[in-house]
Amino acid sequence: MEALQKCIHAERMIGRIEALAQCSQPGRGVTRLSFTEQSEQAILLVAGWMEEAGMKVRRDAVNNLIGRYEGMDPDAPVLLIGSHLDSVAEAGKYDGILGVIAGIEVVHAIKESGTITKNPIEVIAFCDEEGTRFHTTFLGSRAIAGTLREPDLEAQDHEGITVAQAMRAVGSDPEQYRRAARDPQTILGYLELHIEQGPVLEEMGQSCGVVAGIAGQSRYEFRVEGQAGHAGTVPVRFRRDALAGAAEMIQAVERIALKNESVVATVGKLAVLPGASNVIPGVVEGTLDVRSLQDDVKQSTLLELIEEFRQIAQRRSLACHFRRVMDSPAVACSEPFVLAIETVMEERGMKPLRLVSGAGHDAMAVAAITDIGMIFVRCREGVSHHPDEYASPEDIMEGTTVLMNAVLRLTTYSR
Amino acid sequence: MEALQKCIHAERMIGRIEALAQCSQPGRGVTRLSFTEQSEQAILLVAGWMEEAGMKVRRDAVNNLIGRYEGMDPDAPVLLIGSHLDSVAEAGKYDGILGVIAGIEVVHAIKESGTITKNPIEVIAFCDEEGTRFHTTFLGSRAIAGTLREPDLEAQDHEGITVAQAMRAVGSDPEQYRRAARDPQTILGYLELHIEQGPVLEEMGQSCGVVAGIAGQSRYEFRVEGQAGHAGTVPVRFRRDALAGAAEMIQAVERIALKNESVVATVGKLAVLPGASNVIPGVVEGTLDVRSLQDDVKQSTLLELIEEFRQIAQRRSLACHFRRVMDSPAVACSEPFVLAIETVMEERGMKPLRLVSGAGHDAMAVAAITDIGMIFVRCREGVSHHPDEYASPEDIMEGTTVLMNAVLRLTTYSR
Repeated sequence: MEALQKCIHAERMIGRIEALAQCSQPGRGVTRLSFTEQSEQAILLVAGWMEEAGMKVRRDAVNNLIGRYEGMDPDAPVLLIGSHLDSVAEAGKYDGILGVIAGIEVVHAIKESGTITKNPIEVIAFCDEEGTRFHTTFLGSRAIAGTLREPDLEAQDHEGITVAQAMRAVGSDPEQYRRAARDPQTILGYLELHIEQGPVLEEMGQSCGVVAGIAGQSRYEFRVEGQAGHAGTVPVRFRRDALAGAAEMIQAVERIALKNESVVATVGKLAVLPGASNVIPGVVEGTLDVRSLQDDVKQSTLLELIEEFRQIAQRRSLACHFRRVMDSPAVACSEPFVLAIETVMEERGMKPLRLVSGAGHDAMAVAAITDIGMIFVRCREGVSHHPDEYASPEDIMEGTTVLMNAVLRLTTYSR
Repeated sequence: MEALQKCIHAERMIGRIEALAQCSQPGRGVTRLSFTEQSEQAILLVAGWMEEAGMKVRRDAVNNLIGRYEGMDPDAPVLLIGSHLDSVAEAGKYDGILGVIAGIEVVHAIKESGTITKNPIEVIAFCDEEGTRFHTTFLGSRAIAGTLREPDLEAQDHEGITVAQAMRAVGSDPEQYRRAARDPQTILGYLELHIEQGPVLEEMGQSCGVVAGIAGQSRYEFRVEGQAGHAGTVPVRFRRDALAGAAEMIQAVERIALKNESVVATVGKLAVLPGASNVIPGVVEGTLDVRSLQDDVKQSTLLELIEEFRQIAQRRSLACHFRRVMDSPAVACSEPFVLAIETVMEERGMKPLRLVSGAGHDAMAVAAITDIGMIFVRCREGVSHHPDEYASPEDIMEGTTVLMNAVLRLTTYSR
C-alpha cells in the first residue's frame, strides 16, 4: 500500500487542475460549458493524461470521455470512477474536475506500482452535469444509465442551439445516444470523489468523509398576495403587507429546518412587488427548496411548512399559493461501498464521518444501474460554484489515497 | 348656508373630473405629466371653469394656473385654495384634481348665491406635485412659497429634457421663476381638499376628516451581508443567510411600528442576491420608510429599529449597513384652521376626526409662508395612485360643503 501511495503525486494533480482551469471562457473564474471549444480543449488534455496513465481512451455517443485500464480478467465487471468536466458560469477549479483527475491518478499509481487488479477500471469524464448551458442535468451520466430520453436532446441553450446540434458540432452522433447506455451486468459499481461544497468537514477538522447518500429534493414556488398601499397613509394595523407575511414565513422555514439535523430548507429567491420604497408590498413571490436523505422527513417537513405558511397567511388575511416545480427522491450510497470507504478511512486514522450530499452528482444518475460510493474532500469555507472554491494539496492527496485504497478493496488485486 | 349649499353641484364636479381624466397619455388609468400636451389640455379646461365661476385667470412664472375671485376688500390678504393637476403614471382620477375642482365649485357657489366675502379667494392648480416626470416634488407650490431653487430647474426627465426646457415648451419663462413667489403679508392662509389615500375614514364610516398635519418622513436604504452558499450542502445551523436575517428585521419593523399608533414604518423594496432557488442568499438590500407627525417619535422609532437590526445582524454574524436617503420634518396644520374645519364638521353632525397625512401634499410646501388647513375625503379601500382610485359623489359633495363652510368661516363674509 505504501509503495502505491508513493505513486500518487499531488503536484501532478494540482498542475492538471490548473491546466484545466485555463480551458475557460474569458472572464472571472472558470466557465466551461458543454460541447464548446473550451470543453473540447479540456477533453484533449484529459485524454492525454488518461493515455499517460496507461488507459485506452474513447468517447461514447454523447461525448463522455472514457479511459479503460484492464485488470486480470477482461470479462470481470468494470469499476467505474467518474465525475464531470463542465462547470457553472464563473465557477471554481475543483468541482467535477477533482474527481476526474483523482480517478486518473489512482490508475496511474496502480500502473506505476505494477499492481494488477482483478476487475478492469474505467475513468469517465462526464460531458454535462451542471446543466448550465441547456438547463438539463446529468446529461452524460443519464446517457450511461440509459435514462436519457429523446426530448432531453431537444433542450436549447440561450441562443436556441439544441443539445443534439451542439453534440454534432463536436463530432458526436446524438442519434446514437442509446449506445452510450451501459449494461448493468458488466459493471461492478461506481465511485466518485468530489469536493464537499459545504462546511461540515472543515467544521469537523477532517480532510475527507464518506457520503451516506444524496438528499432528495423538493422545490416549490410560492406566492403571497396581500394589498398594496401607500406607505404613509395606511396605518400598520390595517395593512395586509405581503412582505411582512413572507418574513414570518421565512422565519418559520428556518425554525422548522433547525428542528431536524437531517433536513435543509432554503428560501433562495424572493421578488417583492410592486417594489417601491413608499408602497406597501402587495405581492411576494419566492422559492422554497427542501432536501433530506430521508424522503419521509423531507415530506413531513414540507407538509409542516405548507401548513405553517397557510396559517400565517390566514391570520394576516393574505392569500398563499404553492406550486411544485421539482421533486426527486433521495439516493442512498450502497452499504458495501460505504463500508469499504469507511474501513479505509479508519485505517488511515480518520473518523468514518458519514455525510449527506445535499447537491446532486453524477453518482445519483449512475445509481439507477449500479452500486455507488462517494468520497467528499474538504473545501475552504464550504465555498463552491465560485472562483474562491479551494481544496488544499494535502486534502486532495488524502482524498485520492482513500479513493485508491477503496478501489483496491473493491477490485480484488494482487501485486 | 343652505342656499349656498344648493349651489354646489356634485354632477358638475363629477363631469369635470371625468373630463380631466381624458387629458391623459394613452394606456391604463390616467397619466398626465407636467408641461406636456396633456397637462396643457387640462389647464385649458380648468381655466374655462374658473372663468365660469367668476374668476380672473392667469398663469404664474412656473405655469401654476391661478383663478382670483375678489372679495369686499381687494387689499385684504387672500385665502388660497389649491391642489395639483399632474398625476403619477397609471393614476386614478381624483388625486390632486378633486381639490382643484372643489375649490372652483366653492367659488362658483359663492358667486351664484350672491355671497360676498371680505377676503379675496384664489384657486391654484399647481403644475407639478407628484414629481413623476422630473423626480422633483412640489415644484409648483415651492415656487409660490419661494423655496424653489435654481438647481431644481435643471432636473431632467428620462429623455434628458430639463424642467426649464419643458417650461419653455409650454410658454413659461423659467428665468422668472422667482416672480411666482408670494409675499406672506398678502396671504391669509391655504386650504386644500384631497382624497385620503388611506383607509381610516372608510374604517370609521365618515365622509371626511380634518388633517392635523403632514407626517415627517425618513427614508433609509439598508444592506444585510451574509454568506452565499449551496442550498443543499450547508446545514441550516452553519448558515449566515442574509434573507433569514432580513426576515427577522422586517418582523421587527412591524412589531415596533405596531407599538405606537402615531408612527408607520414600511419595508417596500427588497432585493435578494444572488437570487437563485438553490443558493443561500448572501446579500439583501432593502428600503426602510418611517413616518410620524411627531418628529421625536419618528426619531426614537428609527433609533430603536436601527439598534434592533444591529443586534439581529450581530446574533447571526451578518453585517448590516444603513444609508439615509431622505429626511423631512413633520408639518403641523395651523390650529385655527383645524378648529374652523372641525367646527364645520361638528355642525354637520360629523365627528371632528383628526387625521395625519402620511403622504406629502402641496400644503406642506405652502406651510413655509402661511397657515394651512386640509380636508380629507374618504376614498374606496384607501386605494390611490391606481386606476381603481374612487371617491363617491356623496363624499365629494360632503367634503366640498365642509370646504365651503370653512372658507366662509375664515373669510369674514356677508350675504
